[in-house]
Amino acid sequence: MKLPNHVTITEVGPRDGLQNEARILPLEQKVAVIDRLSRTGLTRIEAASFVSPKAIPQMANAADVMAAIKRAPGVIYIGLVPNERGACDAIAAGVDEISVVVSASESHNRSNVNRSVDESLQSVTEIAALCRESSLPWVGYVSTAFGCPYEGVVEPDAVFRVAQHYAEAGAYAVALGDTIGVANPKQVRELVPHLMTAVPGAEVRLHFHDTYGRALANSLAAMEAGATQFDSSIGGLGGCPYAPGASGNVATEDMVSMFHAMGVETGIDLDALLGVTLFVGEMIGRPLDGRVQRAVAASRE
Amino acid sequence: MKLPNHVTITEVGPRDGLQNEARILPLEQKVAVIDRLSRTGLTRIEAASFVSPKAIPQMANAADVMAAIKRAPGVIYIGLVPNERGACDAIAAGVDEISVVVSASESHNRSNVNRSVDESLQSVTEIAALCRESSLPWVGYVSTAFGCPYEGVVEPDAVFRVAQHYAEAGAYAVALGDTIGVANPKQVRELVPHLMTAVPGAEVRLHFHDTYGRALANSLAAMEAGATQFDSSIGGLGGCPYAPGASGNVATEDMVSMFHAMGVETGIDLDALLGVTLFVGEMIGRPLDGRVQRAVAASRE
Repeated sequence: MKLPNHVTITEVGPRDGLQNEARILPLEQKVAVIDRLSRTGLTRIEAASFVSPKAIPQMANAADVMAAIKRAPGVIYIGLVPNERGACDAIAAGVDEISVVVSASESHNRSNVNRSVDESLQSVTEIAALCRESSLPWVGYVSTAFGCPYEGVVEPDAVFRVAQHYAEAGAYAVALGDTIGVANPKQVRELVPHLMTAVPGAEVRLHFHDTYGRALANSLAAMEAGATQFDSSIGGLGGCPYAPGASGNVATEDMVSMFHAMGVETGIDLDALLGVTLFVGEMIGRPLDGRVQRAVAASRE
Repeated sequence: MKLPNHVTITEVGPRDGLQNEARILPLEQKVAVIDRLSRTGLTRIEAASFVSPKAIPQMANAADVMAAIKRAPGVIYIGLVPNERGACDAIAAGVDEISVVVSASESHNRSNVNRSVDESLQSVTEIAALCRESSLPWVGYVSTAFGCPYEGVVEPDAVFRVAQHYAEAGAYAVALGDTIGVANPKQVRELVPHLMTAVPGAEVRLHFHDTYGRALANSLAAMEAGATQFDSSIGGLGGCPYAPGASGNVATEDMVSMFHAMGVETGIDLDALLGVTLFVGEMIGRPLDGRVQRAVAASRE
């Protein structure tokens, strides 16, 4: 089994996680989560989304969050932006990196942002120009890269089309999002090398959801295909399993625990991470969903 | 990715699952679970354990269970036996196959059955003789094959020692049990081929627990190493995640769903299986833990 010595994890709990939670956290709680995460050895934290608070009230105060967090040395704080205005706000707020999202499937993109894929890609070009002016690195996410809730199968060409637009527009990395958790390891093992060929200059990142329990198997398949960049969310935050449309992120602890067991380093302190999981669970008022934290909690009873 | 066209799943819910549930099901409920499972396309069901009902009250009435179930054509009903007496009872009750369990680690075996590994292996030899007399196939399980709750690391030699004893005594299959869910894909990928070499005449089976969420990743690794035989439990039954010492089985639906998505056939009807999961959850009075059934339940809300 050919494995990398080290992989890099981007913690998306404060954004992709909290955005999908019913409970809206006040500013100081969001800041507390991010600051605790930044002391676990994580080097990349998706900290905020610069969207309209009317559209996504969970993500209000993005600029205030960026101003209030205690910047840890060596940690990259990332802001998601939906459009040029969001990009301007994110740049003004001092993010270290920007991420953008476009779906591979037309119907999901339209349902998500009420635009065609082409319209979204045009917007990406404009965001890219703003990033270039500010010398800010940015990452392009391809949503529904492994399957779409409306269209079912997504053809690899639809994925490559978005990915290549990102690469040509200057993204240093392209991320494949398994938005509804339907990816399987065979598909991952086939798609990832093709993507690497399609965007030879860009890093490839994987963002798996654990809806059907396959996220770690998919991560393994991606790693065997040469991927070393993964997203995950503290405690699997985001997408309550009992809520309609459940599509929870893979738990950071579960990913870190498996990688470490395999001798693949992440630089993250698992015990410190589990402390943050406990803290976040108390904050949002329900036990979080990661397997490792559940096993650890059970062993302490 | 080299994958088999077909794998065989042994459903262990009625035994390994129910044995670890707090609620003790009456005879007719156990029979109802087994009979429903036998109509899903499953071809192998671990139906009972022939232990003392004083030791494990959940497993009382094993012979009555075997007498009351409606034998489905093509389905193999398996009985676990702890000793010669259990083997005699299982044979008299008409099981199609017997399974035995010995731990690879001394301290776990002693804690489990108050015997040394050598004493347990001697008992296996006697059970094997009874099976031979009755022309009954039997499988040997190696518990704690990937790690022990008392000793931590388990050396492969300790696993091979038990496995080779099984093979020499006439087991047609040897199963590795990840009793506490600590196996990782790298370890699986290394151990499985070595085991196949150590017991060249025997089938190799994997019994993964999902304690740390790694069961599907480990199944993938095992399949890539050539394994085609897996255990799983309906709804992940067995080892409640919030109970001390949690060590739940991997959910049959999760395994079947991932395998089918990869084009690996199991012969099992996933929808029918999910119907049984719902039925069992209502029977034991809590929603079961599999990811697929949770996602399906959420999508119906």
